[in-house]
Order: sequence, then structure tokens, then C-alpha cells
Amino acid sequence: MTDRALVVLSGGQDSTTCLYWALHRFGRDNVESVTFDYGQRHRIEIECARRIAEDAGVPHVVLPIDTFAALGGNALTDSSVDVPDTDPAGSGLPATFVPGRNLVFLTYAAAWGWRRGIGHLVTGVAQTDYSGYPDCRRDTIDALERALKLGLERDLTIHTPLSSLSKKQTVLLARELGALDAMRFTHTCYRGQRPPCGVCAACRLRARGFAEAGVIDPLVESPGV
Amino acid sequence: MTDRALVVLSGGQDSTTCLYWALHRFGRDNVESVTFDYGQRHRIEIECARRIAEDAGVPHVVLPIDTFAALGGNALTDSSVDVPDTDPAGSGLPATFVPGRNLVFLTYAAAWGWRRGIGHLVTGVAQTDYSGYPDCRRDTIDALERALKLGLERDLTIHTPLSSLSKKQTVLLARELGALDAMRFTHTCYRGQRPPCGVCAACRLRARGFAEAGVIDPLVESPGV
Repeated sequence: MTDRALVVLSGGQDSTTCLYWALHRFGRDNVESVTFDYGQRHRIEIECARRIAEDAGVPHVVLPIDTFAALGGNALTDSSVDVPDTDPAGSGLPATFVPGRNLVFLTYAAAWGWRRGIGHLVTGVAQTDYSGYPDCRRDTIDALERALKLGLERDLTIHTPLSSLSKKQTVLLARELGALDAMRFTHTCYRGQRPPCGVCAACRLRARGFAEAGVIDPLVESPGV
Repeated sequence: MTDRALVVLSGGQDSTTCLYWALHRFGRDNVESVTFDYGQRHRIEIECARRIAEDAGVPHVVLPIDTFAALGGNALTDSSVDVPDTDPAGSGLPATFVPGRNLVFLTYAAAWGWRRGIGHLVTGVAQTDYSGYPDCRRDTIDALERALKLGLERDLTIHTPLSSLSKKQTVLLARELGALDAMRFTHTCYRGQRPPCGVCAACRLRARGFAEAGVIDPLVESPGV
């Protein structure tokens, strides 16, 4: 297959780091990006993703997914479910779990890339993710990669450059890739606040990563969106 | 996991046969059905599916998928692409190929079943399918089953009772399962006609299956929808 790559860009810190990883790996002319509009509570993410792609100079498309809302019952799309403040790791699946969300994202990304000569998908999932989403683990991704290759009859690689990195290491990688400045366009806060609320689980994890890396978070200093 | 099953019901002959297979295997009280509304050209399928489920006495839900339309470029959802009359087997992927469609259907079915205690998905895909869809093959399904089990942290089995059956054998199985009468509610015609047009690839394949089995197709005799 080709060396063209499609980055699943959520508008967050991790997928933005992945975008810059892809620019280094495949070259700007061979990178595209996609964001899924699945009715997320914090719609600002989509605008952030658009700005991040524009800033990086890569094509960007927003694909709609209305099915998650119909599936219901999760904190990211259902306003009747509270967003948890605490880190739910170790306490079973979090309230923010949309069953199979990453499987759907990657399947659509592969389908979108099918007619566009995309041989590489890049996603910011991490096994060390605080949320404990099972569809972020590399063994899940490996199985899906196989299903997509077979189901689309295409050679396809799913890259997870952050898979085994801690948040601290991800921040250091972002700096190494020249992605730090773009961090002011990113969104992390589960409450949708800019500047970030600083107290939700996502904000606290992000802050800890930057602190441990000894790097100032551009988002906290001067949000770009 | 539980012995509850969810049948992916397209409204066609194969998935209807699978519904009756599931009734025999799991018992009526343990079977539910789902139909995906993905903007298919022949909307009558959805009404057919509803009638088939009602007739069989099982719960039925229609889940929306708007993303395929955004992916574009295929004959089943894009009215600018002609529906092929000829059997495209052996000539590469057909114009009716929606990349990864079955992968998406099964992932959503698993997600829908996640909070409902569903341990079994049943789908009418067949490796012998005239259309040559690569996501209908059992090796693809096996890989997806593994991805779903890992990604949802649930034991889950994807049943493909028609996987290795010819269309003739599928008709004979339908008769054995008492599903023949329900066939008048089904829809097969790619052109959306009832009674069926009889000349499109789907109609001709169906007719050949019934003829080879020596069974009269109730749909041709007296359509129920």
C-alpha cells in the first residue's frame, strides 16, 4: 500500500502529538487528518482539531457519527450522566466509556481512506491511559488491524506511537517533535472549559504530565482557541 | 456471558433465516434484533425488517448510521452510482461495496448489546456470497470477534450460520427452521421493487437458490409488505 497516512485527530494533546509524529514519519504531503463529530459534549474539540490541522498545514475532514447518541448511556454524549471527577482506573469501566468507540473511529478512518490510498492510520490511544478504555490497548488494536486488512482487502497499519508512553513521556515527545506550540489549540478538559477547569480527571492528568516533564503547558498560559 | 443473542436483521432472506436460526438456538425470549438505517437506497428494507421481527415476536430496534453517506461513492447509498445488473464476482470489488460495512454493523451491534447482556451476535454473511464482500468472510469475522472481545472486555461470539452455505442450502435451511412463510416480508431486489424486478443480480441469485432447492419463493407469490 502507499505511504499516505491518516491521523485520527480528536483535538486533544495526544492526537496532536501523533499528528506531528506522522509529519515526521511520512512527510507533510502524505498526511491527512480526520475528526469524528459524534455528539461529544465538548463540541469545542472539533473546532480545536480544525485549528490544529490548519496550523500544521494538513487536510482535515470532519465525519459525522450519530449512532453513539442512539446507543446512549455514557457521560461523553449523554447529558444525563455526570462527568466523574475522580480517576476511575481500577474501578471498572469509567462512566465516560462509549462501548467500542475507538473500534468505530478506526474502522471509519480505514473506510474513509479506502478510496484515498491511505495505508497508515495513526491514533493517539495509549495503554497507559488513565481511563482504562479496553479499546485503547494494543492487543485490541492488533486484532482490529487484522480485521480491517481482511475486511477491506488492503494492507493497512495502525500506528499507536504513544501506546507505551506515560503522560510525561508524551509531553517530552511532543517537545522533541516541535508540537509544543500547537498545544495551545488542543482541548483536554472534560468540562469543556478554556482555559481548562484544572480539576476534572482529564485536566489533572494533563497537568501532572507537563509538571513531571518540567514543561509549561502552552494551553494554560495562552489558549489559542 | 449470557445466552442472549442479537440478530443483525437487514430485512433480506439471509438475515431472516438467521433470525429463525437464533430462535431455535437461543429461544424466543433470548433473542433481539437490530436494523441499521444507513441511508440505503431501498428504504423498504427497514420496514421489511420491522415486519419480520414483529411477525417472529422479537424486539427490534433501528439504529441510525449517517456516516456511510459521508464516506460516499457507492451504489447502495449514492444515487449517482449505477446499480450493476451483472454478477460482479471475480471482477474485483463490486460497485455496491461500502468499505467495512459489516465491520461497522457488528461493532455497533456489540456496542448496543454491551449494556443489554448480549453475548451472541448473529449475522447472515456468507463466504459464498455472490458479491465477494471481503468483510463477509469468516476470517474477517474471526478477527473482528477478537477485537470486540478485547475492546469491550466481554465474552462475545459472532455466529454466521450461513457462512459456508450455498443459496440453495440457505433456502433448505429456512424451510427446516420454519422461516419460509416469513420470506414474503423480506426484501432482496437491488432496485427496491416489490414484487421483485427479477433481473438485478440480487433477484437472480435469490431466484436461482429457490429454484435449485425446488421451493416456491413466497415473496414472488404474495409479497407481505
